[in-house]
Amino acid sequence: MGVHIGIDLGGTNVRVASVTENGEVEEIMQEATEAEQGSRYTIEKMIRMVESISEGKEIEGIGIGAPGPLDPTRGVILDPPNLPGWDEVPIVKHFADHFDVPVQLNNDANAAALAEARFGSGEGYESVFYITVSTGVGGGLVLNGKVLNGVQGYAGEIGNMILNPHGYQYSNLNKGALESYSSGTAMAERFHEHFGSYGGAEDVFSLVSQGDEKAQRIVDEAIEYLAMGIANITHIVNPDVFVLGGGVMNAGELIWVPLRDRLEDYLYPGLVPHINLKPAALSGEAGVIGAALLPQQ
Amino acid sequence: MGVHIGIDLGGTNVRVASVTENGEVEEIMQEATEAEQGSRYTIEKMIRMVESISEGKEIEGIGIGAPGPLDPTRGVILDPPNLPGWDEVPIVKHFADHFDVPVQLNNDANAAALAEARFGSGEGYESVFYITVSTGVGGGLVLNGKVLNGVQGYAGEIGNMILNPHGYQYSNLNKGALESYSSGTAMAERFHEHFGSYGGAEDVFSLVSQGDEKAQRIVDEAIEYLAMGIANITHIVNPDVFVLGGGVMNAGELIWVPLRDRLEDYLYPGLVPHINLKPAALSGEAGVIGAALLPQQ
Repeated sequence: MGVHIGIDLGGTNVRVASVTENGEVEEIMQEATEAEQGSRYTIEKMIRMVESISEGKEIEGIGIGAPGPLDPTRGVILDPPNLPGWDEVPIVKHFADHFDVPVQLNNDANAAALAEARFGSGEGYESVFYITVSTGVGGGLVLNGKVLNGVQGYAGEIGNMILNPHGYQYSNLNKGALESYSSGTAMAERFHEHFGSYGGAEDVFSLVSQGDEKAQRIVDEAIEYLAMGIANITHIVNPDVFVLGGGVMNAGELIWVPLRDRLEDYLYPGLVPHINLKPAALSGEAGVIGAALLPQQ
Repeated sequence: MGVHIGIDLGGTNVRVASVTENGEVEEIMQEATEAEQGSRYTIEKMIRMVESISEGKEIEGIGIGAPGPLDPTRGVILDPPNLPGWDEVPIVKHFADHFDVPVQLNNDANAAALAEARFGSGEGYESVFYITVSTGVGGGLVLNGKVLNGVQGYAGEIGNMILNPHGYQYSNLNKGALESYSSGTAMAERFHEHFGSYGGAEDVFSLVSQGDEKAQRIVDEAIEYLAMGIANITHIVNPDVFVLGGGVMNAGELIWVPLRDRLEDYLYPGLVPHINLKPAALSGEAGVIGAALLPQQ
């Protein structure tokens, strides 16, 4: 039995792991992505990492989780904001040519969704909607153990969901998009507007626990919009469970208690008793574990 | 080979049809629902209609499309606004006890979605999102020929999708819900506000074609919100095709041209060339055809 390789390609770091059939990380290594050196440079580095971690073993398959937009069918990274200069990169072809094994590409949130659905908080459920609230807001729907990619691979791009046509607008997102309210980046923007200095989501939560009212309003708004987003997903696909991960969700009951509370107001009464929100279980390893699962789908 | 029976139970009329394996209506009959007489009265009427249409033939299965909310798993109609007084009605049990054949219940939009996906404008696509814009706004997602019900049967309840937290609110819908902007009922409300008299969506469109600016604003707003709703569904499930039916969609290019135009603004650029919006093909018969398909799923 050979090894299953999972690669989590991020804007800052790239991680490569060998993962067992049961979703356990056997060996893992991490290096800086250095995306600015160009895709060829980074891909060669990734290939060396895979060779090192699989030394003396047969590779069963390689899965790559990467920032979107990308095309999972063609195996091509399009032009992700987090990998500047990477434009139409046929990453799957590079790995398939070199290793001659099955190689699959999907976006990082879909990979994490798959890991949580199979071996994390979504284990045992038929339909799992994974949401990551971090620098951005992303997600992925897993139905009967398979990721729903959507026809152009845009399923789960929930950060761009419109919740307020007169709302905030950032970068290439829609006006009033979920990510412009509930992401760590949005909370940091609000922090700067309210306090004049720079801080991240963790600073906002720290001020909230000290009773700061301005910080509380920032959190309230982030939670309000996240609740609306979850309500909308419920009224579209009504999954068995929502699994929520990402740095912002680590704020504990400061976020989980009011989130459940606000969500109830936005659901048809028949749905309220069945709300099932769970914290992600695999934390930082969901990316590599899910990536390793991609070629096995 | 026996007959497949489809029942379309509406607030006003109930229709019963025998439908071929190829989705063609062989025979169809219609009577008034008379929901106010109570569920037992109407169910007995429906049973007589099924007996009449299947006379001398064996029944393969019976499918019922009904207004939501309902529980497709238990086969129970909950408390739909369009069937006042029908509270926890075990309609599947009534038919199964009487006919001793497989009986399935689903909501009317899901039944129509199934029909359009199998024999209508969604034929040949892997994932079809059907939207009906009529008195209300509803929908259904069909993946590989199967309706996605969701865990409590609320998948496709897109009329309740929040698009504006400061928007209009009607009945038990969320504030700023899609249905409060884009449904025929919403357009009629706006008509009354703007013109002081009563009129429906068709009156609004008629005024638009005469160049009336107030009516144009009503239509613009309805289309704007429908475009936002479709964009949100795209960024969540990214279906191969959207099939749009219901009375409001019959307004021709007054609605289709600006709808495609507005939608482009709300999608990630990579999605724009692939927008696939199609008018429903089965019109009034999608309900009974889809219902007849339910037990065959």
